[in-house]
Amino acid sequence: MIKEGDRVKVRTEKETIEGVLMPSSETDIVVVKLDNGYNVGIDKHKIRNMKVVEEHKEKKGKKKEVKIKKGLPTIIILGTGGTIASKVDYTTGGVIAKFSPAELLELIPELGKIANIKTELIANMMSEDMMFSDYQKIAATVKKHADKVDGIIIGHGTDTLTHTSAALAFMLEKINIPVLLVGSQRSSDRGSSDGSINLICAAKFIVESDFAGVALCMHATSEDDKCAILSPTKTRKMHTSRRDAFKVINDGPIALVGYKTGKVEFLKKDYLKKSKDKVVIKDKFDDNVILLKTHTNMKHSLFEFLAKNYKAIVFEATGLGHLPTNLGKENLKNYETLKKFIKKGGIVAISSQCLFGRVHPNVYVNLRRLSEIGCVFCEDMLPETAFIKLAWLLSNYKKDAKKMLTENLRGEINKRIEFEEDYLE
Amino acid sequence: MIKEGDRVKVRTEKETIEGVLMPSSETDIVVVKLDNGYNVGIDKHKIRNMKVVEEHKEKKGKKKEVKIKKGLPTIIILGTGGTIASKVDYTTGGVIAKFSPAELLELIPELGKIANIKTELIANMMSEDMMFSDYQKIAATVKKHADKVDGIIIGHGTDTLTHTSAALAFMLEKINIPVLLVGSQRSSDRGSSDGSINLICAAKFIVESDFAGVALCMHATSEDDKCAILSPTKTRKMHTSRRDAFKVINDGPIALVGYKTGKVEFLKKDYLKKSKDKVVIKDKFDDNVILLKTHTNMKHSLFEFLAKNYKAIVFEATGLGHLPTNLGKENLKNYETLKKFIKKGGIVAISSQCLFGRVHPNVYVNLRRLSEIGCVFCEDMLPETAFIKLAWLLSNYKKDAKKMLTENLRGEINKRIEFEEDYLE
Repeated sequence: MIKEGDRVKVRTEKETIEGVLMPSSETDIVVVKLDNGYNVGIDKHKIRNMKVVEEHKEKKGKKKEVKIKKGLPTIIILGTGGTIASKVDYTTGGVIAKFSPAELLELIPELGKIANIKTELIANMMSEDMMFSDYQKIAATVKKHADKVDGIIIGHGTDTLTHTSAALAFMLEKINIPVLLVGSQRSSDRGSSDGSINLICAAKFIVESDFAGVALCMHATSEDDKCAILSPTKTRKMHTSRRDAFKVINDGPIALVGYKTGKVEFLKKDYLKKSKDKVVIKDKFDDNVILLKTHTNMKHSLFEFLAKNYKAIVFEATGLGHLPTNLGKENLKNYETLKKFIKKGGIVAISSQCLFGRVHPNVYVNLRRLSEIGCVFCEDMLPETAFIKLAWLLSNYKKDAKKMLTENLRGEINKRIEFEEDYLE
Repeated sequence: MIKEGDRVKVRTEKETIEGVLMPSSETDIVVVKLDNGYNVGIDKHKIRNMKVVEEHKEKKGKKKEVKIKKGLPTIIILGTGGTIASKVDYTTGGVIAKFSPAELLELIPELGKIANIKTELIANMMSEDMMFSDYQKIAATVKKHADKVDGIIIGHGTDTLTHTSAALAFMLEKINIPVLLVGSQRSSDRGSSDGSINLICAAKFIVESDFAGVALCMHATSEDDKCAILSPTKTRKMHTSRRDAFKVINDGPIALVGYKTGKVEFLKKDYLKKSKDKVVIKDKFDDNVILLKTHTNMKHSLFEFLAKNYKAIVFEATGLGHLPTNLGKENLKNYETLKKFIKKGGIVAISSQCLFGRVHPNVYVNLRRLSEIGCVFCEDMLPETAFIKLAWLLSNYKKDAKKMLTENLRGEINKRIEFEEDYLE
């Protein structure tokens, strides 16, 4: 009797496939998880032969006691879920977020040589479901530990890793230690899993450098040779599955950390340093903010809905910051709706779906028309960062929110240089 | 008396700036357009001295007559507006879309050596305002000329150039000649304008190659040395201002065209060839489709609004295709709303805001939950292309729309290879 979890060898007309038998949602399909982590579906009718190579055995948990080593710095790893905390779930054949920080430490003994590791579980979720209340929990936990440890690592799903890093960067108005967000693009049951290396590099960076503040630590290349320390407000997940998916937009990494060499190389000089300053957090967010990407043939009714139901709209506009507001019945109505919305105190912020480059309120007449009614052009700020920032500003700085949106608070804006190279070249 | 349009030299404490005096919306600011096309605002109170270098003279129009040269192929250039058709507008100091195809030809005499050029103005708009009805006008004009010319060039704003190219690629079910969309990232009054070179390369490509079908022709690099012929369905504007902003996502260009060498180098082999086949267009679109990018902390009321007001929702989801539908009150309600929406015949399509890579219905439990209720995972299709394709399919193929969404019709999907490199590496 072959059962799920068994290692099997499946022979079809064309090929022989070896891997772990997974549950299948389709009755005619056999699903096998290959050693590289990829699931392959095989038509049952095409299978000539299937045999068990190795029976599935439940691994028994044996918890090591973690000894405190004197002289080593202390790092706390906070768990929030995500792939970095995931294991293959044989009930469904997919991957769900399972996380116990102690287990994580057991999986990666190298961490124990770098620092005394503490752990705490904050949440257990895939990051697409994050709400502002989750950010608040994370910030509170960071504050609770900041004065007692040398650095904090937050394990987090990659999908909205940069939403959370931006949120944390804004919430932590004063922070005295490094707070590194770490994710994993491949789950830990895969040969190609990146989670361990990202965690080890994060720990090394905390121990070896004088950096303080929020950053990400993820694979710098598709090799396992080094990780990049990345801006919490200018970074974006730019690939669904590559391990080096995280890219700083309009800029480069803060530092590189060699995985085997352990060497930290700073590419930026002007970063915050570790200190004894008291941690200050401002952790409120306003729920009434939306991020909306524009496209062609938009209906006016959507603009009306937004103006009625939100306090602020962050547009991911086209090009230099264009909105469909100039020509045609629907588009002209959009303009009038936004004009009224702003007059009544609503905020309209404009970023670009090009992602690279910056928006500009003056180049075209159509941009000037938006500028005239009070739309705020967010320079080279990422749409997601503008969304997080505005929700945070509205709640913590009220009347100053609009003004502060275009002030560079956490490295989210590279201020325009008068003769800007990329614009002129 | 210094007047707008005059070439002036302005001296402040720190520097001397020379350029054309522009109108300024702020009374305390003098705006000067530099020779590189950039507008500089100067505080009036800081100006020591301003003098006229050259008075503005209205250029008198002198229309050349275009002689038909025997033996040369014929290309028609269709104007729709956009920067490629723009001139500095001295009334506002910005750039508006002004276009007369005859003027364009006068500006770029090189075109006349490559082919006999005809022109027709379809529209005069910046592309952010494009509606499906504009696509229909363009397709009809293409059809009208296709049998009488050797190729068609469509001048178009860059903001939604790839929305239109995708729409045209789908609408033109059969096409026998090359149809190249050409835009310009910098207006023609700038030294760095790219419009002329893009047009010249497009014309050369039409004349020198056997390619048929829809494609873009834009700068391949930030140099003026070559242009790239780009997929109409897999290309995206990835920078607000760079001339080489257009990038094929998950793939490379179809061909390169040397500007000075005139050499055409094909990088793809499997393209459609010129023929005598009859042109077939299917040009209907369904207005009830929306593209929505997800983010954290979304309100359920938006999902409800969409389910009530649209027939299909194309999500620009996070990562491998995740939606906020799993955890927490608002998110779980989103799941139920989408489930009901699909049950009643609505279509939910899923693409990724990572842009690079592909979505996947199986890797995570949360993805499987979406798959189970009938969400369609759009492989490596771009969100904008999925939006255009679905609106087109719904109207022209009704019941088959859902099935055809994941079929590769115009190169918009690179079908999954079983052992996909980027996923495994």
